[in-house]
Amino acid sequence: MIAKSMEGLVNNNSVIRQMFEEGQKMAAQYGAGNVYDFSLGNPNVPAPKKVEETIKKLIAEEDPVVLHGYMSNAGFPDVRKKVADSLNRRFNTSFTENNIMMTVGAAGGLNCALKALIDPGDEVVTFAPFFLEYKNYVGNFGGVLITVKPDTETFQPNLPEFEEKVTAKTKAVIINNPNNPTGVIYSEKTIKSIASILEKKQEEYGHPIFIISDEPYRELVYTGAEVPYITRYYKNTIVGYSFSKTLSLPGERIGYLVLPSEADGYDELFGALTIANRILGFVNAPSLIQRVVAECLEEKADIAYYAKNRDVLYEALKKYGFSCIKPEGAFYMFIKSPVPDEKEFVAKAKEYRILLVPGSSFMCAGFVRLAYCVSYETCKNSLPGFESLAKDYGLI
Amino acid sequence: MIAKSMEGLVNNNSVIRQMFEEGQKMAAQYGAGNVYDFSLGNPNVPAPKKVEETIKKLIAEEDPVVLHGYMSNAGFPDVRKKVADSLNRRFNTSFTENNIMMTVGAAGGLNCALKALIDPGDEVVTFAPFFLEYKNYVGNFGGVLITVKPDTETFQPNLPEFEEKVTAKTKAVIINNPNNPTGVIYSEKTIKSIASILEKKQEEYGHPIFIISDEPYRELVYTGAEVPYITRYYKNTIVGYSFSKTLSLPGERIGYLVLPSEADGYDELFGALTIANRILGFVNAPSLIQRVVAECLEEKADIAYYAKNRDVLYEALKKYGFSCIKPEGAFYMFIKSPVPDEKEFVAKAKEYRILLVPGSSFMCAGFVRLAYCVSYETCKNSLPGFESLAKDYGLI
Repeated sequence: MIAKSMEGLVNNNSVIRQMFEEGQKMAAQYGAGNVYDFSLGNPNVPAPKKVEETIKKLIAEEDPVVLHGYMSNAGFPDVRKKVADSLNRRFNTSFTENNIMMTVGAAGGLNCALKALIDPGDEVVTFAPFFLEYKNYVGNFGGVLITVKPDTETFQPNLPEFEEKVTAKTKAVIINNPNNPTGVIYSEKTIKSIASILEKKQEEYGHPIFIISDEPYRELVYTGAEVPYITRYYKNTIVGYSFSKTLSLPGERIGYLVLPSEADGYDELFGALTIANRILGFVNAPSLIQRVVAECLEEKADIAYYAKNRDVLYEALKKYGFSCIKPEGAFYMFIKSPVPDEKEFVAKAKEYRILLVPGSSFMCAGFVRLAYCVSYETCKNSLPGFESLAKDYGLI
Repeated sequence: MIAKSMEGLVNNNSVIRQMFEEGQKMAAQYGAGNVYDFSLGNPNVPAPKKVEETIKKLIAEEDPVVLHGYMSNAGFPDVRKKVADSLNRRFNTSFTENNIMMTVGAAGGLNCALKALIDPGDEVVTFAPFFLEYKNYVGNFGGVLITVKPDTETFQPNLPEFEEKVTAKTKAVIINNPNNPTGVIYSEKTIKSIASILEKKQEEYGHPIFIISDEPYRELVYTGAEVPYITRYYKNTIVGYSFSKTLSLPGERIGYLVLPSEADGYDELFGALTIANRILGFVNAPSLIQRVVAECLEEKADIAYYAKNRDVLYEALKKYGFSCIKPEGAFYMFIKSPVPDEKEFVAKAKEYRILLVPGSSFMCAGFVRLAYCVSYETCKNSLPGFESLAKDYGLI
């Protein structure tokens, strides 16, 4: 009946739905306040006030035919200019509006980048653990996602294996920085090493290999941490950005792609990106929200809110004997399961009404993801449950 | 460099861009008021006042975490319920929220429908003239678009040829009602005939064949005309709708798909549609605008505005000796070129600063499309140009 390519996904999806429904059921049974749902990456911080103010201002001042109308498939030129200027100010780059395409979130942008770059059979490499949706995005265009096994000590990319897995068929490499699900930031050293491996491989195979850098968490970094701006290290890069997390607008579907002018085949590729935006059915990023984010480029969701959650959870989990890298960015912690089968741990945690996601959902069994984009009370009140879990597993 | 599948499109696109840039150049040279640009289907009527009022109300009253947040991939359940209720009231259907998926415009919805239904090599049939983007949408998933030649007398679908072109490989049929570029409405008789052919073919080949009905112009119909609601005639139907034209919100990317519960494999297919929405990168239709359209389901762009344009152009063109079907819906007229090569006619019209689109861009050479979603003045002031054209070609 449905497309063969969709059959597995439809069957699989019901498993995820079951999980979600179980959470809902638990909330109904025990009261939402007594369920510690760390399973979803849906920000719990409201959008900055300036978002609302800007919407009101635009509605009052702008011509509705323009405000809600079609524009170039790449987005309003003045919005793209403002995005470029903001990047230049912050990262010492030199972009213009011709390096920016507004997109329907980062997910929309990544699909455009892959559509522009890959044909059926082409390979795209990524590093485990990773957001499993990448497999579907690559599969949309008949590509094959090749995964590099994790370094579970540092969760920096496993570079020796990476070097082996880049072949003549590799058209692109997806990285995610800061990383979901680990909260790790790929260091400047890592970025330089990836760039140097790819420079060599490009020369060896005689064609460009693009890094697609998925960066929805770029602005969510904690004190002292820095996320290197990758176009400064490797010219064949497409950066995918989303305002979902920074401005807490995940439902509005707004982001952008960056393609530097120095990229090989820049003209052709920028053309392909805008056509991909059109023919995949996005057509353009939503118009009113384009104008809103252009006025809110210096705004940020309250990072202190997430930092407080991180600190209370990280300190407690460490005290209880759990093992976990301290997140430098995003709002995820990736905790080592006390037993090899992390699904058993996830099931056990549910007995304390704590909901976590198994690492195998990120191609990294033996770990679980905790999303702390929830209220401080949820974090705080979950601690006795974690303490009991630690006792159950003999960690304390 | 870029994907092979994109190379032709990138080269082609520069032709369209040239056309657009030429229009811009003419406007700069002669003044925008002296260029009669009928080339784009971008509504010139502002959104109904209620759109603005609803945005302001939602911003003031709703929790921003919900208003701008993620929801089910199919959309907010209450929004889907309101859409279903509105359809039921108007078309005597019996939909619930489980028959509605909110989408990123009709283009986004059509891509989801095709992703859910077709595998590489599957065939999708459509009727010329048609919106050429259908070819790209089908191609996105490796499908093959099979086109049925037009009946250039009535521009109702050519049913004998249709019957021949539906084969064992056919998974879907795309229709567009009211039609772009002709302004024709497919009559109840036509819909019944298409349904009856497909019923027979489904039985013959032993698998469902879905009609995907693209209906962005459903509400733009002139006095007396009616657009049959197709799910009442054929159960294996997915209706794609967009608010772009009715509410003049083309940039906002908001529409929906309808899948009736009686459709074969409804559960599996509705699941596949929502997964397609997610993995193609839409994730969900933009959240604030979902809530806005739910409050504006009884609103309409001012149809009298378009009717006035249609009447002044149609009467004049007829008087000048041009041949054209009187549009019953949408805001397009499809005019027979006075010479077999309509591109020659398009070039000649440019001498009078009249911009039209060649019918070959809709797979129907020998005709040109005129989009009258422009100001009344533009229509009125273009008439001397059309009169001169008629004289040039000896029509008067």
